[in-house]
Amino acid sequence: MTTDAGLGRIEDGAVALLDTAFPHIGVVLEQEGSLRCLASCAVRRRIPIDEATLVAPLGRPRAVWGVGLNYVSKAARTGRGLPEQPILYLAASSGVSAPGAQVVIPQAAAEPDYEGEIAVVVGRRLYRANESEVWPAIAGITAANDMTARDVMRTTSVPALAKSYPGFTPLGPSLRTPDDLSDRDTIRVRTLVNGELVQDDTSAGMIFPVPDLLSRLSWFTALEPGDVVLTGTPAGTGQDRACFLADGDEVRVEVDGVLPLITRVVRPEDASLRDHRLTEPVS
Amino acid sequence: MTTDAGLGRIEDGAVALLDTAFPHIGVVLEQEGSLRCLASCAVRRRIPIDEATLVAPLGRPRAVWGVGLNYVSKAARTGRGLPEQPILYLAASSGVSAPGAQVVIPQAAAEPDYEGEIAVVVGRRLYRANESEVWPAIAGITAANDMTARDVMRTTSVPALAKSYPGFTPLGPSLRTPDDLSDRDTIRVRTLVNGELVQDDTSAGMIFPVPDLLSRLSWFTALEPGDVVLTGTPAGTGQDRACFLADGDEVRVEVDGVLPLITRVVRPEDASLRDHRLTEPVS
Repeated sequence: MTTDAGLGRIEDGAVALLDTAFPHIGVVLEQEGSLRCLASCAVRRRIPIDEATLVAPLGRPRAVWGVGLNYVSKAARTGRGLPEQPILYLAASSGVSAPGAQVVIPQAAAEPDYEGEIAVVVGRRLYRANESEVWPAIAGITAANDMTARDVMRTTSVPALAKSYPGFTPLGPSLRTPDDLSDRDTIRVRTLVNGELVQDDTSAGMIFPVPDLLSRLSWFTALEPGDVVLTGTPAGTGQDRACFLADGDEVRVEVDGVLPLITRVVRPEDASLRDHRLTEPVS
Repeated sequence: MTTDAGLGRIEDGAVALLDTAFPHIGVVLEQEGSLRCLASCAVRRRIPIDEATLVAPLGRPRAVWGVGLNYVSKAARTGRGLPEQPILYLAASSGVSAPGAQVVIPQAAAEPDYEGEIAVVVGRRLYRANESEVWPAIAGITAANDMTARDVMRTTSVPALAKSYPGFTPLGPSLRTPDDLSDRDTIRVRTLVNGELVQDDTSAGMIFPVPDLLSRLSWFTALEPGDVVLTGTPAGTGQDRACFLADGDEVRVEVDGVLPLITRVVRPEDASLRDHRLTEPVS
């Protein structure tokens, strides 16, 4: 994880702050290709988790890829057939926000929605990779909330526009390495809105599982260290429930082995106010 | 410009190498928001331009936005009406290549094409900006070749997939600040393939001129320092001429006040060979 006091590792429920000059995990991956170099770092000191201020673990990544309709549950809920190819898109990484961030919904987004997702973070370059090469090249997984303005998606048909508002991609807070996963083919992802469970599925329900998804993507583009791939959202988004996000809502995304990703939505009724509040950018 | 010997400024036809530790212009913009800080740098030494090895001026940017059909000439040539909104997309910045690079066409891209373009590089954050705020926030312009696999575009309808192969976005080599442009509303862009002039237009022929284009984009996303916006290509692409790129072709994009951007295309007839040659990534 990345804290305002430097990089840390979770040990026995506390945060061990590491003796390293790396400002965030994104730079570690760009320079080292994995998190292994952190394993040998000395521990400066330990602090309780609830005293740590968690910041965007990767800083601002250089690529955030995503995929539409990648869960069987979502296809069933929406009555759509299973796609034969993944529906791939890029979101602007200027939309990445830190764990715990307040996300201000812009006036233009009338139907803001959450999408709880498993995010995979690339450690080593993947280009024209086969499936067996994918997991060894992944540095870790984390939680994501791939927020989407449904009305903007409907009017523009461009995911990059509907998903790139400042703050619309909360990511984090901690990374879990693939080795540490008890079953990397069955990673649970759950989303709670104001404490109510609204999404609950596992990666076993993916139409294009992680190795297949990243392999296919890698035949179109090179995935570089620090790049992020959002792996799709299961059934239970606001769209499925005809209930979009409102001022003060708290969205909590839980991914196996990762600290919960909590985001608060701010949406003042007064549109002129809304226009003058901005989500803090990450750097 | 960025050279393998550090940052440089063109003075009297030579490269003045600057006394600064910034590795490339992208970092200058992320940290300083403009190139002004370079004006006061001492000059370490001067070298002739043809002895300078130019590298990717911005390193790997964090966003490369583009726009489809943004020249009246292109709409006229293809018989399409003028769009009412810009057709915006993101390309993966892992596809950015250095000036002078060899770009290896992957086997999957049967119809590789060039698109000579004016690229604008953001200096200061633009979010919900009006048109008058755009030029003051632009750090500079440069040349781009927004290469596209036409067949992949046809089969996927996803620009991010058709334009994100390694090397498909040559950028550079030098940046020209807006103050240095004699007429920023009439910037000439020309493309030559193997010495033959195939595109020749100016930004006065844009459907959405630079201030309008970036203003509109900024209502969907925050453009951050170092982000790049490709502003569309005029008539005369290979698609217009029914002539795609072939092994050994040299594409030269000329933009007013910017050194020419030259790219060589490599496309071995033997597909198995093609699969094992890769365009060098930028970092």
